[in-house]
Amino acid sequence: MKNSYEKNVISKATIDRLPLYFRTLRLSQVEGIEIISSEELGQRLGITPEQIRKDLASFGQFGKKGVGYYIKELISNVGKILGLDNHWHIAVIGVGHLGWALAHSRNFDSLGFKLVAMFDTDPNKIGQCIKGVEVLSLECLKEVMQEQTIHIGIITVPEFYAQGVADKLVAAGVRGIWNFAPMKINVPDTVRVINEDLSVGLSSLSFYLARQTEID
Amino acid sequence: MKNSYEKNVISKATIDRLPLYFRTLRLSQVEGIEIISSEELGQRLGITPEQIRKDLASFGQFGKKGVGYYIKELISNVGKILGLDNHWHIAVIGVGHLGWALAHSRNFDSLGFKLVAMFDTDPNKIGQCIKGVEVLSLECLKEVMQEQTIHIGIITVPEFYAQGVADKLVAAGVRGIWNFAPMKINVPDTVRVINEDLSVGLSSLSFYLARQTEID
Repeated sequence: MKNSYEKNVISKATIDRLPLYFRTLRLSQVEGIEIISSEELGQRLGITPEQIRKDLASFGQFGKKGVGYYIKELISNVGKILGLDNHWHIAVIGVGHLGWALAHSRNFDSLGFKLVAMFDTDPNKIGQCIKGVEVLSLECLKEVMQEQTIHIGIITVPEFYAQGVADKLVAAGVRGIWNFAPMKINVPDTVRVINEDLSVGLSSLSFYLARQTEID
Repeated sequence: MKNSYEKNVISKATIDRLPLYFRTLRLSQVEGIEIISSEELGQRLGITPEQIRKDLASFGQFGKKGVGYYIKELISNVGKILGLDNHWHIAVIGVGHLGWALAHSRNFDSLGFKLVAMFDTDPNKIGQCIKGVEVLSLECLKEVMQEQTIHIGIITVPEFYAQGVADKLVAAGVRGIWNFAPMKINVPDTVRVINEDLSVGLSSLSFYLARQTEID
C-alpha cells in the first residue's frame, strides 16, 4: 500500500516544516529530553501543536496519546521521511564567500550530507582545501561528478554563470540542484531544483518593520 | 483609508513572494525590458500569472490590462511596499564564515540595506574590515547600536550564544532580528524575528530525491 506522500498529496508547507521538526528534535535530544509533547515541540518552533500533529500524521502513526513522541524514534522516522539516510553526496560550484561558508557548515554533515567536491574557475581558489576536499577546476566537473557519484550540486556562482553551471551539472548526471543564484535556471523535469534567495528573509523583515513604523 | 495590508489580511505566502517579484523585476530592468506581462514574470519565477496578479492586486492597482506592468513603476511600488525605501541599518553579530559571507553580499546593498556594524568576541576577528566597516567587540554592542541607530541585527553566532546576543540586541533597542542560529530565540512582541534555516532547502531537496528513487 502506498503512503499518502507517495501519491504527492502532502503540501509543500508540510514538507518545508519537516526539516524544522527534525532539527528541533535533535536539539532536544542533545538536551537529554527523551519524550516530547506536540505542545512543547510547538512552543520551541512557534508552530501550533495541532499543525505538528497533523503534519506528522500525514506520514504515519507516531507518538502516544497523552504521552508524547519518543524523540529517538521520531528523529529516525522523520530522517527517513526526509531521505537523509541516503547520505547524499554534494558538490559546491562557486567557492566565493557564500560557497565557502556553505562548505564549512556543520549542519550539513550532521544531517548526513557529504561534501565530496568543490569547483571554481579562479586559479587562486583551485587547490585550496576545505575539510579535506580540494577546490578543482570547473573543467573537471563532469569527470569528477561521475567518479564520485555526486547527487546534489550547490550553485553559488554569480547569476551570469548560473545557467551554464546548471547545464554542466545536468550533463554530468546530477539529480538535484540547490540554487543560490538569483534567477530561475532551466533544467529537465528529471532534475529537481530548490531555489534559495537570502534576500527574501531580510526583505520580509523590512516589510514588517515598515508596517510597524506606520502603526507607531 | 487604510489599505488591506495595514489590516494584516495579506497572507505570509504573498509577503514572501514580494521580494522575489522585486528581484526578478530588477533583473528584467537590467536586461532593458520596460514592460512585462504577468505571464512573462510568472515564467521567470515559476509562479502562475494568476497568482502574481492576485498578489499585486492586494496592494493596489498596478499594471494595465492587455499591456502589462511598467517595470520602473512597479519596482518603485513594490520597493515601497517592502519598506526598502527606509534604507535600514543592519549589523552582523558573529563574523564566522556565514556572517562573513552575508556581510559581503551585494544583494543587500542593492536592496537598500546598509551594513553599519559587525561584532564578534574573537580577538583575531576584531579589527578586521569588510566594506569599510570594522569588526568590533561584542561588548561595545549597546553603545555602537545607539550611536548608529541600528534597526536590524543579523545573528550568525553558534546556537549556544544566540539567545544571549538576542537579549543584548533587544536591550540596545533593535527593531528586527534575522536569526540564522538553529533555535527559537525569545524576544518581546515589539521586536520582529525572521528565522532562517539553511538546512531546510537542502533537506527538502533530499525529500524529493528520495521519493524519486522510490518511484524509479
